[in-house]
Amino acid sequence: MDYSTMCPKYEAAIELLGKKWTGLIIRVLLGGPKRFKEIKEQIPEMSDKMLTDRMKELETSQIVNRNVYPEMPVRIEYELTEKGRNLKPVIESIQDWGENWL
Amino acid sequence: MDYSTMCPKYEAAIELLGKKWTGLIIRVLLGGPKRFKEIKEQIPEMSDKMLTDRMKELETSQIVNRNVYPEMPVRIEYELTEKGRNLKPVIESIQDWGENWL
Repeated sequence: MDYSTMCPKYEAAIELLGKKWTGLIIRVLLGGPKRFKEIKEQIPEMSDKMLTDRMKELETSQIVNRNVYPEMPVRIEYELTEKGRNLKPVIESIQDWGENWL
Repeated sequence: MDYSTMCPKYEAAIELLGKKWTGLIIRVLLGGPKRFKEIKEQIPEMSDKMLTDRMKELETSQIVNRNVYPEMPVRIEYELTEKGRNLKPVIESIQDWGENWL
């Protein structure tokens, strides 16, 4: 890997993943599709508005799909796309580092 | 890996690495010890104050060492500690994902 110049794709990835709560939300969704409330349960300090905003951004970035099931009452689940699931090595390497060094 | 509950060490790692500019600074330093000016060259949009603040935080977190060489004029270099060098898999997995998906 060439560390002598900055890479725009790396910068873009950092911009996306470095946003507050995003790294936590992706980790939760690696556990499978989740409802809004289920995500909140693992990240209780995050406000509803913040989670709503982040989920919209993650949908726009095609990292998360929002699935609406027409039941009564309607059920909405968020799940990682292939692009999102491919973040698993990132999340796992952060977890490993945290366990070893923090 | 257990995704069913949030891990405090993961949260702490995300808190540290997710700060604006930090992911870029660590990538630059994976290329070897660097002077302030050399870091700035790869991240020109970052202000001097921001870089100064981030380097202090990274020193406090023991991710970066600040080496002062008593030459004329004095030479100061920043280098990753072992804790910092162990972030290489994190940086590389972000780079890989960025190249493949952005």
